[in-house]
Amino acid sequence: MRGFRTDLAMESIGDSKGRLEGVVVDQQQLGEISRTRIVIEDHRASEALSRPCGEYITLSCRSLSRCDAENRRRLIQLVAQAVRAMLPREGEILVVGLGNRNVTADALGTRVVEKLLVTRHLHEALADELLGKLRGVSAIAPGVLGVTGIETAELCRGLIEHVKPAAVIAIDALAAYESARICTTVQITDTGIEPGSGVGNHRLGLTRDTLGVKVIAVGVPMVVYASTIARDAVTNLMEDYGLMQDTQSEAGQLLLQKVSESYLGEMVVTPREIDELVLSVADLLSEGLNRALQPNLDTETLHTFLHG
Amino acid sequence: MRGFRTDLAMESIGDSKGRLEGVVVDQQQLGEISRTRIVIEDHRASEALSRPCGEYITLSCRSLSRCDAENRRRLIQLVAQAVRAMLPREGEILVVGLGNRNVTADALGTRVVEKLLVTRHLHEALADELLGKLRGVSAIAPGVLGVTGIETAELCRGLIEHVKPAAVIAIDALAAYESARICTTVQITDTGIEPGSGVGNHRLGLTRDTLGVKVIAVGVPMVVYASTIARDAVTNLMEDYGLMQDTQSEAGQLLLQKVSESYLGEMVVTPREIDELVLSVADLLSEGLNRALQPNLDTETLHTFLHG
Amino acid sequence: MRGFRTDLAMESIGDSKGRLEGVVVDQQQLGEISRTRIVIEDHRASEALSRPCGEYITLSCRSLSRCDAENRRRLIQLVAQAVRAMLPREGEILVVGLGNRNVTADALGTRVVEKLLVTRHLHEALADELLGKLRGVSAIAPGVLGVTGIETAELCRGLIEHVKPAAVIAIDALAAYESARICTTVQITDTGIEPGSGVGNHRLGLTRDTLGVKVIAVGVPMVVYASTIARDAVTNLMEDYGLMQDTQSEAGQLLLQKVSESYLGEMVVTPREIDELVLSVADLLSEGLNRALQPNLDTETLHTFLHG
Amino acid sequence: MRGFRTDLAMESIGDSKGRLEGVVVDQQQLGEISRTRIVIEDHRASEALSRPCGEYITLSCRSLSRCDAENRRRLIQLVAQAVRAMLPREGEILVVGLGNRNVTADALGTRVVEKLLVTRHLHEALADELLGKLRGVSAIAPGVLGVTGIETAELCRGLIEHVKPAAVIAIDALAAYESARICTTVQITDTGIEPGSGVGNHRLGLTRDTLGVKVIAVGVPMVVYASTIARDAVTNLMEDYGLMQDTQSEAGQLLLQKVSESYLGEMVVTPREIDELVLSVADLLSEGLNRALQPNLDTETLHTFLHG
Repeated sequence: MRGFRTDLAMESIGDSKGRLEGVVVDQQQLGEISRTRIVIEDHRASEALSRPCGEYITLSCRSLSRCDAENRRRLIQLVAQAVRAMLPREGEILVVGLGNRNVTADALGTRVVEKLLVTRHLHEALADELLGKLRGVSAIAPGVLGVTGIETAELCRGLIEHVKPAAVIAIDALAAYESARICTTVQITDTGIEPGSGVGNHRLGLTRDTLGVKVIAVGVPMVVYASTIARDAVTNLMEDYGLMQDTQSEAGQLLLQKVSESYLGEMVVTPREIDELVLSVADLLSEGLNRALQPNLDTETLHTFLHG
Repeated sequence: MRGFRTDLAMESIGDSKGRLEGVVVDQQQLGEISRTRIVIEDHRASEALSRPCGEYITLSCRSLSRCDAENRRRLIQLVAQAVRAMLPREGEILVVGLGNRNVTADALGTRVVEKLLVTRHLHEALADELLGKLRGVSAIAPGVLGVTGIETAELCRGLIEHVKPAAVIAIDALAAYESARICTTVQITDTGIEPGSGVGNHRLGLTRDTLGVKVIAVGVPMVVYASTIARDAVTNLMEDYGLMQDTQSEAGQLLLQKVSESYLGEMVVTPREIDELVLSVADLLSEGLNRALQPNLDTETLHTFLHG
Repeated sequence: MRGFRTDLAMESIGDSKGRLEGVVVDQQQLGEISRTRIVIEDHRASEALSRPCGEYITLSCRSLSRCDAENRRRLIQLVAQAVRAMLPREGEILVVGLGNRNVTADALGTRVVEKLLVTRHLHEALADELLGKLRGVSAIAPGVLGVTGIETAELCRGLIEHVKPAAVIAIDALAAYESARICTTVQITDTGIEPGSGVGNHRLGLTRDTLGVKVIAVGVPMVVYASTIARDAVTNLMEDYGLMQDTQSEAGQLLLQKVSESYLGEMVVTPREIDELVLSVADLLSEGLNRALQPNLDTETLHTFLHG
Repeated sequence: MRGFRTDLAMESIGDSKGRLEGVVVDQQQLGEISRTRIVIEDHRASEALSRPCGEYITLSCRSLSRCDAENRRRLIQLVAQAVRAMLPREGEILVVGLGNRNVTADALGTRVVEKLLVTRHLHEALADELLGKLRGVSAIAPGVLGVTGIETAELCRGLIEHVKPAAVIAIDALAAYESARICTTVQITDTGIEPGSGVGNHRLGLTRDTLGVKVIAVGVPMVVYASTIARDAVTNLMEDYGLMQDTQSEAGQLLLQKVSESYLGEMVVTPREIDELVLSVADLLSEGLNRALQPNLDTETLHTFLHG
């Protein structure tokens, strides 16, 4: 473990894939898409990886926004499948879009929520026949602590007591360790959102512990912290020059710390075209979620509900 | 009373100013700004005007967005004064921005909330000295029923149980009867938001009854319903042609109803430059509210908190 | 002819369809879409209708934004067909998006231009094989006079001298006479943009006379002027009450003029959800235009160019 | 000279301030603002610094967006002063906002143009008295090559032939070498925009050579290229470890090149809150430019023109 910041379980396990005790890793290739399933099974593995026990599905391809029509369809299907498998069989679902809608790299959650089919309020108006087919869905993008003065977890708790969903789906923009992960990877996990994760750095997590119901988290890396890039460049160099023993030494650690804590602080690395990427990835995730949440509606009916 | 739709108490009382029993009306002229205070005192007046008992302050000028620097300062001060007078002396305040941020004419509430000084979460971090001066403020713009699946009132109730504010301030875009009211009038009332009011047509109201705490509503007309314009033109004509008895007749009523319920349904009349007007009015209201909520901070300190 | 303002030739000819000398009208029904082709053939007809000689194709359906997938495909195809038939066989095309991007109801042209496949600058980089298939397209959304200080026509003239296109396609948001036309009708004409037309009221037109090349105009009604609604309500009433002779009388004319020139001035009537409608109609038009401009590319290749 | 990419003359001269022959450097401290004037006087200095001969004014402070009211006023005044000193005494001015409005970090130029007082089209309508006080200003934000298919320089050339301005002011988002420069520095120069500079990497420059009139460029760094951050971290490390001789060696050069040309390619480093920063810096620049362009209008009159 190198201690670089990442919200992806896949990066946490690094090259040790499957050889860590208490961690199961499966990988499949489906056309251009690689699907990795990681299960952290026990407490020891959880501690070693600094990640809660549970299931992590990772879908990767060359680009989430620029794949061809066939791979796009497959991605949507894989997102839907992974989310549906984690959802409880019955009961309403509350979707929470995390992040700040006015910060491009942090706006993914709010953009996804804007495109969801929300049905909870239709239950009185709909014919019985259709009603049996529709799952009750509500959705909110409450905004971040600095804008509302209220912790997202706290706000959700109040809402959950009223709406009483069977589970929560939380959508968030993630930080990765490798810049190649940005907008190329989706992570779906049943462990919820951990404190300190996401582009917006949530102070409290959104988990079964804090919310009282199962929390499924769906996220896509949107940034790498600039300090990670700098540390990475330095580490690679030290390896190339046979200074690796030094990275373990106190001096080496100090140096790396200096890089991390320098002026780069909260600077993020992001593709120049991030504005467009966020919209495109939000489209893809919302299509996947709409299918996971409403498996009884065909695409045409879904479209009519959303736009008609 | 003609039955045209308006969210302004001032338009409800019409030409009968002050001559209605149970209604007190005061008017003042301050530079270019006219300030009207209406108090609906008893049940009978409330019924006659279809408006709850309480106080309604109306500030009007030629244009809320295009007044000169001096009148702008005065408007901000008058908004601050009216809100402050209605606020409880102590306790946290929750501000709720109503409406749909993706519908220009309905976005006023969400835009105001974006510009508020939110302080509730700072209470642990601030020095005692400053803390004594700062009122705890939280703010949320939850989005409309069609987007969230949750009634705004319901969502606020859950939040209020956690945040326990002493009062709520609700901001909303209003519908007026006269198009000359659009972006020229602010209404501040201690009666909350009534069901069916606002550009977005709230199904449930936000009042002391539904939320359990005092609700101060601040609103600015952003639209006139197109059916109102048409009915108005027709009524004027019938008056001019001495057909007024007909407007009382069944035939006349049918005609007016036809106009109202026609294709015009949810069409709204709005100035072409509404996008710019909303931003400008949101600036003005948020400045007024920030002063009402933080009377102990001078302008410079407020500015530093907001932008620095 | 009632003298109400409309940018649609179809509304100008009114109920007199095909019975006006010098005007040819064909109508077809294709699924839910009605396609009307109007040709104003001679000077007399042109004067009677206050519209230049030329061809006007109108496509109408219940809603441009909420039709099902099949009708949407058909609409895109009909737009593409109509534009392609008016384009010169060879030569580069310049697309001009008119209107103000910061005024929702006037932003259609700028939104369409954002979604076009622009190819002029690729000509050096592309392989010969592909090059033969691609038409050179450039596109600009220059902004309105009040924002730039430069007439759009003047700006285009300078550009045309450098780019030397074989024709210009101008996209604009229109004003209609009937509110039922808003976002339900597309007009495609080879006569260009007339002075005084559009939501933004162009002072100079964009025509072969002002630009020196053929100008194809594509537009969709986004507003009705509020004064039109009021006049219409009044006229209907006068008809119902047998006062029609009065609308011809001086008194009647004065009354109607009063309605038109009243406070309603530049107020527009628009659906509440106009923000969403503009984006949806821009999608549809840009797909139609991309096909008209690049008939040799299949949908998948077009998509790859645009997003990949 | 290290060869890292920067658009700031101040970073190009680095620590060699004033000791380079043919380069004059003056520095002043005004409150919290540091003002540096660099003049590159001759061909040799120009080549050594890879920058055209001319004057470069740099204004720096802790933060352009978060300074207090007094320093903000001073910054606006210094921007106005620097631009005014470079403007020709008489004649119309054309302001060109460079960059892509849909890419947050590249949108500065387009945002500034939206807030400028544009007067060219008022000349017929205004009273003679006011007319004598007003300089003719036009403004355009034409969009980038990938969106229009037209080089910005080419587009400007066509426009200049029609508008015939005495000078052009070009506004652009810059790339810096040090991340501490982002949103803390304004550069004003009479040398125009160089090819390859800016966040958007202009292929052709905007200079007297390409446009035929004087070009004043105003820019603020919005990004650092991620490869610059990585190279910088590596270089610092090599210095610390006494490997500096190696950075001169072929192996060292290869290593640095590897870092630069790696996956990081077009990734940019930017503050997380870049969306807000762009708007705030655009406000500041537009106020400075409005004063430089209209020295005969007081603040109140300027405000009335802009908003009234």
